[in-house]
Amino acid sequence: MDGRILIIDDVATNRIVLKVKLVAASYHPILACGGLEGLRMARICVPDLILLDLMLPDLPGFDVLRELRNDPVTRDVPVIVMSASTALEDRLAALEAGADDVFVKPYDDDLMMARLRNLLRSRQDLADLTDGHDSGLFGMAEPEAEFQQPGHLALVTEWPQRAMKLREDLSPLMRDTISVLTHDTVLSDAQPATRAPDIYLIDVDYLQSERGLRLLSDLRSRAATRHAGICLIAGAAVQSHMIMALDLGANDILNTGMTLPEIALRLRAVLRSKRRADLRREQVQDGLRLAMIDPLTGLFNRRYASARMMVMAARSQRDGRPLAVMVADIDRFKAVNDKYGHAVGDDVLIEVGHRLGCSLRADDLLARIGGEEFLIAMPLTTTDEAQSVARRLCLEVEQRPILVAGGGALKVTVSIGLAMSQCAENGSPNAVADSVDALIGRADQALLASKRAGRNQVTLARTAA
Amino acid sequence: MDGRILIIDDVATNRIVLKVKLVAASYHPILACGGLEGLRMARICVPDLILLDLMLPDLPGFDVLRELRNDPVTRDVPVIVMSASTALEDRLAALEAGADDVFVKPYDDDLMMARLRNLLRSRQDLADLTDGHDSGLFGMAEPEAEFQQPGHLALVTEWPQRAMKLREDLSPLMRDTISVLTHDTVLSDAQPATRAPDIYLIDVDYLQSERGLRLLSDLRSRAATRHAGICLIAGAAVQSHMIMALDLGANDILNTGMTLPEIALRLRAVLRSKRRADLRREQVQDGLRLAMIDPLTGLFNRRYASARMMVMAARSQRDGRPLAVMVADIDRFKAVNDKYGHAVGDDVLIEVGHRLGCSLRADDLLARIGGEEFLIAMPLTTTDEAQSVARRLCLEVEQRPILVAGGGALKVTVSIGLAMSQCAENGSPNAVADSVDALIGRADQALLASKRAGRNQVTLARTAA
Repeated sequence: MDGRILIIDDVATNRIVLKVKLVAASYHPILACGGLEGLRMARICVPDLILLDLMLPDLPGFDVLRELRNDPVTRDVPVIVMSASTALEDRLAALEAGADDVFVKPYDDDLMMARLRNLLRSRQDLADLTDGHDSGLFGMAEPEAEFQQPGHLALVTEWPQRAMKLREDLSPLMRDTISVLTHDTVLSDAQPATRAPDIYLIDVDYLQSERGLRLLSDLRSRAATRHAGICLIAGAAVQSHMIMALDLGANDILNTGMTLPEIALRLRAVLRSKRRADLRREQVQDGLRLAMIDPLTGLFNRRYASARMMVMAARSQRDGRPLAVMVADIDRFKAVNDKYGHAVGDDVLIEVGHRLGCSLRADDLLARIGGEEFLIAMPLTTTDEAQSVARRLCLEVEQRPILVAGGGALKVTVSIGLAMSQCAENGSPNAVADSVDALIGRADQALLASKRAGRNQVTLARTAA
Repeated sequence: MDGRILIIDDVATNRIVLKVKLVAASYHPILACGGLEGLRMARICVPDLILLDLMLPDLPGFDVLRELRNDPVTRDVPVIVMSASTALEDRLAALEAGADDVFVKPYDDDLMMARLRNLLRSRQDLADLTDGHDSGLFGMAEPEAEFQQPGHLALVTEWPQRAMKLREDLSPLMRDTISVLTHDTVLSDAQPATRAPDIYLIDVDYLQSERGLRLLSDLRSRAATRHAGICLIAGAAVQSHMIMALDLGANDILNTGMTLPEIALRLRAVLRSKRRADLRREQVQDGLRLAMIDPLTGLFNRRYASARMMVMAARSQRDGRPLAVMVADIDRFKAVNDKYGHAVGDDVLIEVGHRLGCSLRADDLLARIGGEEFLIAMPLTTTDEAQSVARRLCLEVEQRPILVAGGGALKVTVSIGLAMSQCAENGSPNAVADSVDALIGRADQALLASKRAGRNQVTLARTAA
């Protein structure tokens, strides 16, 4: 279910008023009337967001918060604390216990809803990366200590003196590097070569002049800075501007009325979620890499090879230039495996893959597409060139025995089937897919001919009828 | 390099004026003075965005556009056409040839920069999904026909009659289903159970009242609709609102001055990029799945198992409840492989994995962590329960011969080592990681004892000193 929001509040009227507002905005509220019930429901339903009252009869809100943050299942669920207390210590304690924001009653409904959208969107951004997988899995595999490293905070301001003062005040409370940038230098400073700051804190008066919002959007649109934490520090900000800032993706809005410890706490929270998101993106990239690579040889796998061949074939057709495709197969590989065992077989696969790779150009494609079968595709290559490369590949494998685990050396050969693309008249993707399949099919046939003719040789496929 | 923008324009002053503006905004302009040079540079540098003048002496801008769109390398690079012509046919032809937007000179600089940020951000969103990989690879592997299927367009309006009229006018020009929604129903309608529309077209007057912008943000923050194409149709929109809409992630802004064919073309373009992004997200998810699963048995792989064990161990420590870990190894598996070949060996692995899985609970973890080695982790399990499950697993494997390729049936057994977690005093993630390693290590030792004692049996590890 989309937009499940858990309300934990012991006062029935509060729950009902909130519920009505949330339903009107097409969210799906779930109600809990105490801390223990709230915790239980949070663990069972894993809501998208929690609205938590601090004054609960059975279990103090702070304890609920800490429990939520300690459980891998609920740890990343955003929590907005609604507090009747205007006491500073309570705000601080709530943030320290892991609240994403604190709204003191009575609060502005529109602003609250904007914060809700804002937190839900951040959460969705992360969820998209791990859709359908155990949400507790990612992050937990990394030591929490990773997130504690000092970061780099950039204060963006038109009044350097004010920023210097803020830096001076914040420094004792934070372990992070704090630098001061002006509006004009912030974008030119952030180039991929230099590591961008983890957090930008954009000073107040921009917000009033819409310049702050523009800069926020600008940072969000650039590769080097789009995943940074971005906070605005707003003095007397207009409410509609604050809403806009949240909708544009600000991670938090600070104001000059906040105490320094609160500002430091909020910045630390932004840094933590930024780091967690960075980590998750990395894990996704690792996953993608694994999906493309044959783990034994480090060559591309069949899945990647098919997709890549499509691109190569499409280009070759567009340019009317030939594409050469080879299928290479290690001769009598089963006998190697049976006689010497898997470890030796693996060594042979790795070394053959390596030798093939060394004899190819950077633009050529080399993939392991089956047990002992390799695919090679060479763009912009004539029949003569391809035949000469194929013969060289046979020679490279044959001429030096392969050193294997246990100290032995094996003589290994490969057979190769070679097929040349023909220029199709129709360059549609479907036609390209068909022609790629046909091309590999012809190379396979030629490979069989090489095997039948005695192995360790190259056969050129006849052109299609 | 971040923000490389290719300017293709034959008039030197135009190039220079644009260049100055782009440099001021911290982009990196690249200049080409003709169509052929522009094409060549686009292929070599693959810019993040192209600003294309239509009137080029060597190669008409339309042809440049078509060439860019036909090349997998440049196909997804956003192109903004800058035209001196106010002729409708020229706008239409540019959109038809694949322009993302057309600005007629003289145009509003701020709006142009907002469109630039907007297109760059969309491109970055996609690039993030495939970071570091061949950008031409994704998408090309799927037949273009996929993108041609009719979609679902929702007109969101407070004036149903006006929307009905628009639907009537657009229908002959589009193959897509068009439905009409009111502002109040659009969010409640879009639940994950029902497939959300591909595109929302939000009617004009909201834009003026900021309600349209709010709805845009709302759609972008919800799981069911966040990846939809969202366009605003603005009559006399305020320029600052249009800029804000682009920064909030609108895919296009239409206006009532546009002809119906132009509106239809723009909507089709939005649908195509939405479909392309959907496809890329799916491919990333497939990649992630592959990264977690052992392709032979369909069980989790070692990589996933390690991460998952961390979560299970952390919970077990938190709750002070025991966690049972087993390592199960197929007895004399090498002999099976050697005697009957790999295909039979694979059948045995698959069937053993299956039988183990059938005897476990949904919360238990089962993974293939090595050639013939399986890891089992069972939360909330006592020593007695775990021993009884382990013995049942041995029995399940032993009691029925395994049917293998070729029609034979093999008698197979497994040995199991079992270790029980101990409650650590320190629950820090590093301590958890250490204890997971130690736990598996103790199960491994117990497994060796089972092997030494004659195989097909369970050994319980002694508790650590």
